[in-house]
Amino acid sequence: MRKQFRELSPLADAFEVLDSLSVEVSTESVGIEKADGRLLASSVTSPIDVPGFDRSIMDGYAVIADDTVGAYDDNPVELTYGGKVHPGEQPDIDVEPGHAVEIATGAVIPSGANAVVMVEQTSRDGEAIEVFRPVTPGQNVMARGADIASGETVLRRGDRLDPRRIGLAAALGIDELTVRSRPRVGIISTGAEIIRPSTADRLAPGEIFDINSFSLANAVTDAGGEVTIFPHAADDYDVITSTFNEAVETCDIVLSTGSTSASAEDVVYRVVEDMGELLLHGIAIKPGKPTVIGSIDETAVLGLPGNPISALMTFRLFGRRLLDAEANAPTVEAKLSVAVDSEFGRTQLLPVGLVESPGEGLLVYDVDKGSGAITSLAEADGFIQIDDNVNYLDAGEMVSVQLLASHISPPDVLIGGEFCPGVDQLLDRDGPSTRWLADGAVDGARKLRDRIVDIAGVNLGDDTLGVEPRNDIERIACFERHVVLAHRGTFGLGSLESILEQADVLGTTGQQTGLYHRLETLDTSASIRTFPSQQAALRAVTEGEVDAALVLEAVTDTDEFDTVSVMWEPFDILVDGDRREKPGVTRLVEEVTSFNTEMLDGYRPPGDTS
Amino acid sequence: MRKQFRELSPLADAFEVLDSLSVEVSTESVGIEKADGRLLASSVTSPIDVPGFDRSIMDGYAVIADDTVGAYDDNPVELTYGGKVHPGEQPDIDVEPGHAVEIATGAVIPSGANAVVMVEQTSRDGEAIEVFRPVTPGQNVMARGADIASGETVLRRGDRLDPRRIGLAAALGIDELTVRSRPRVGIISTGAEIIRPSTADRLAPGEIFDINSFSLANAVTDAGGEVTIFPHAADDYDVITSTFNEAVETCDIVLSTGSTSASAEDVVYRVVEDMGELLLHGIAIKPGKPTVIGSIDETAVLGLPGNPISALMTFRLFGRRLLDAEANAPTVEAKLSVAVDSEFGRTQLLPVGLVESPGEGLLVYDVDKGSGAITSLAEADGFIQIDDNVNYLDAGEMVSVQLLASHISPPDVLIGGEFCPGVDQLLDRDGPSTRWLADGAVDGARKLRDRIVDIAGVNLGDDTLGVEPRNDIERIACFERHVVLAHRGTFGLGSLESILEQADVLGTTGQQTGLYHRLETLDTSASIRTFPSQQAALRAVTEGEVDAALVLEAVTDTDEFDTVSVMWEPFDILVDGDRREKPGVTRLVEEVTSFNTEMLDGYRPPGDTS
Repeated sequence: MRKQFRELSPLADAFEVLDSLSVEVSTESVGIEKADGRLLASSVTSPIDVPGFDRSIMDGYAVIADDTVGAYDDNPVELTYGGKVHPGEQPDIDVEPGHAVEIATGAVIPSGANAVVMVEQTSRDGEAIEVFRPVTPGQNVMARGADIASGETVLRRGDRLDPRRIGLAAALGIDELTVRSRPRVGIISTGAEIIRPSTADRLAPGEIFDINSFSLANAVTDAGGEVTIFPHAADDYDVITSTFNEAVETCDIVLSTGSTSASAEDVVYRVVEDMGELLLHGIAIKPGKPTVIGSIDETAVLGLPGNPISALMTFRLFGRRLLDAEANAPTVEAKLSVAVDSEFGRTQLLPVGLVESPGEGLLVYDVDKGSGAITSLAEADGFIQIDDNVNYLDAGEMVSVQLLASHISPPDVLIGGEFCPGVDQLLDRDGPSTRWLADGAVDGARKLRDRIVDIAGVNLGDDTLGVEPRNDIERIACFERHVVLAHRGTFGLGSLESILEQADVLGTTGQQTGLYHRLETLDTSASIRTFPSQQAALRAVTEGEVDAALVLEAVTDTDEFDTVSVMWEPFDILVDGDRREKPGVTRLVEEVTSFNTEMLDGYRPPGDTS
Repeated sequence: MRKQFRELSPLADAFEVLDSLSVEVSTESVGIEKADGRLLASSVTSPIDVPGFDRSIMDGYAVIADDTVGAYDDNPVELTYGGKVHPGEQPDIDVEPGHAVEIATGAVIPSGANAVVMVEQTSRDGEAIEVFRPVTPGQNVMARGADIASGETVLRRGDRLDPRRIGLAAALGIDELTVRSRPRVGIISTGAEIIRPSTADRLAPGEIFDINSFSLANAVTDAGGEVTIFPHAADDYDVITSTFNEAVETCDIVLSTGSTSASAEDVVYRVVEDMGELLLHGIAIKPGKPTVIGSIDETAVLGLPGNPISALMTFRLFGRRLLDAEANAPTVEAKLSVAVDSEFGRTQLLPVGLVESPGEGLLVYDVDKGSGAITSLAEADGFIQIDDNVNYLDAGEMVSVQLLASHISPPDVLIGGEFCPGVDQLLDRDGPSTRWLADGAVDGARKLRDRIVDIAGVNLGDDTLGVEPRNDIERIACFERHVVLAHRGTFGLGSLESILEQADVLGTTGQQTGLYHRLETLDTSASIRTFPSQQAALRAVTEGEVDAALVLEAVTDTDEFDTVSVMWEPFDILVDGDRREKPGVTRLVEEVTSFNTEMLDGYRPPGDTS
């Protein structure tokens, strides 16, 4: 039986419930050499005056200001050298009228003097010092306590420590600070199909590796928490209960993932209900609807969805709030590259990627492939939150992007288009950071037109398949790649024509790719099957699912397959003219144009028929 | 003798020299539970297909697509229940024509089936399942390897790890990753006047506490380095040499601070020259001119200036580059609030603070007080780099702000104006994060006019002292504060008039403050001395430097001083109307308006003469 949520709570209610779960953590003392990022637990007042003495802020001469009245280039005042004060020493000199005492920046103003003339406005000849500009009392002197007065509050409770603030504490002679202890966060993964990576090298059919324990552990660390990953709790009520029991004893916050739905098999909400207080289950948000909020004893419990990207997004939204780490949650403002639809009545969290566009700033593009794809996890830099009363955001609108963690920034170069073993090899060198949305030639051409990617690799030739290119798209390189039909000897040494005639089923990669379109143009009555990759198409040949596969020679192990040449296809690398000035793009374009295609089997320069 | 730099190198040359100092660090293996922020040392290819099996991406029924042709609400196709597949199990079912097998999201598609009908498009009655929509082959199925194909490169050398990428590794069963080891960075402080906070509670005149070792240690940690702070090396050539000797043995990079000038007493450049190679000394940049770049054995050496804010800025500019931590250096785009002058011929690093302005985004304001003030260190969020061929930036221009470290963000509320013990007490409660530029009433009124601060406390009454307020500045609260003349019994129980007549020297705080302006209006022939704070003015009374000080009753210890009432002055809290919607401002305004002034000595509600 599928139990339905009786009522979904609005997002604001969820925040209110979270805020009611005051997670009380203790405080501790840390040395200032390692206090970066910590939250100050009590305000700091200065125990001393800074400076602790009247200090010179220039290299020059300490003088009595009245002695310099009227000094100018053509009318210098002449004073007598009266000794020298070094930084760090208490001067043993009393400056008398008509005297000037040499002084370095930071040194103590000797008694009698009340100003400093900059060395650049003086000239010295033995004991005689000429002064070319007058100074007023106090000039170039920082009075005792002028910077910080003893007793002044200099850092406040709740301030997040950073190198500057820590430097300020050091300046006051404080070498330890009282900070909030890191909240202890336990992570409990659930789900019968989940296997911890450390416990198995291979998966049985139906099993998947545990992602959330590790992505969340690092997200918690990023949010300032101290993590314990508990043993995987599968989907058994008793095992989950005993894992929660163990976790709440030592943790301030417990995060669980998976098993949050309202169905009979999803037990997290029941465990929380039975062990403590279930405060909220079901939020008007997508994804994240089945999020569970509760408490067991003094420990706050947050049950996150099992889908990895949903888990990270809801942690960013709800988990950081519990950890009191919202104030420093990474967020950037960016511009929507294409319009986005949403649904009235619930808040949508839309995963997006970021790309830097010179002149426009940051652009965002939608990376939601749905269906729990791991690649959309890796491609999402953050998400935009579309409120429940909004159902459309126009291209060009500014949006606030909640980054999934701190160590996330847009790639130097965003690449789209057809998979290319040559480009793949190129990207593996030292160079700009890249992200490759290798979703095929058609998709790449479209993303280039829509100003999403900087660069795309396209094997469509002049046939743009309905994707109108823009004027400012430049072709920066062209190779030719050898396209072959690979089979398992089934057709002996038959010609291309005879194979096309005999084959019943031919395979290649999906409809977004240029290879698919080439296969469609071949003269054959065979049916076509598509596979997610050329490797998968080749495996289908091995396993007898298809008779032959249209693939690149470069990806084909010729010991294993017989191949027959189909054509040399042009492979164009196109760049958005407006993005050429991006330093990463400039650098990659250089590398691409100097890439020697002959170093790779199945590649040749364009038009080379040798 | 002051030795001059013969020639200053342009900034670009300094970067080139830094880049030539390739800091080779080793690699190490880290568990994926704690790999956040590390740099991947070698690319990762997937050892498996993801998914490892044809997977359902919906809850529903696995079917043969052909069986559903033509299904619609008024023309459902009826299929027979053929069992159930759970996630995590290898199905033992062969789907035959006319059958539908119940399947959960993530479960393995049973053999025979080639599509999944969503449960929402079906209706079940015992063994009979009605299907209301047709599906095409492959619909709601993610094919084996469709997400990630075995052998595909999923993470590249040089990628910075974050929760998403770590999740991706976990998805492939990888539980350890090879990352670049953290560069080992040694810190050597120099300077005769510098005292480590841990070695002394009090300072002798002329001494100051060591700031740079600690601010830099935390900045290095933030940049991914591992820090060793070496014992303070003062200014002795031999001590500095032996400290460098020790440091280069164990460190990849040595940072020194101070003693970098070209004067006879500044020895860092000579130590580097004598021990290894001095590559560059003197850069056309302000501050940072005397920066030293060199190498000793295999270790890179960077000699930074001694001024704390200059040290942090040059570390951000040069040090992070050596640590290979530029790509994730925190930078934000912001708008200049006021125009800025610079100087042709050298690059200027201008320390700035950040403030959020609704509708405008981030604004920056200049915080350079020069003179090595510690408060400008604490008030600088970052700096803007003004190139050597630019001498003017206009208000409103967009600039790139290099933040001094990651854990830096603008305060929730930026406050200006006169110091007020009542407001100080208020800010010490739990509340929005604040920064208070307490530079006096005149300065506060000006910063409010210039749209720098959100809120200012001003005790100027209607007298704005030439600072024209804007229309959209609102007065949100007014208290009255008791202004007194404090003396050490010198004047017995004399009246205000008699004290003003007898006193020779009166003290108060600086000319930017309202107190100074009040003192100026009093009918006295006494001369006026100003002090950096009311406490300093009171100390001058104690030490006999002035006869009496004009201060607030609230800061005066009445056991120690005799006081005579001068007036109750109005203290206005003004807010920029455009900033009221900032959440922190809204909250602080609420607290200010509900603040009970009677809880504090020397305060009363306006007009209360009781």
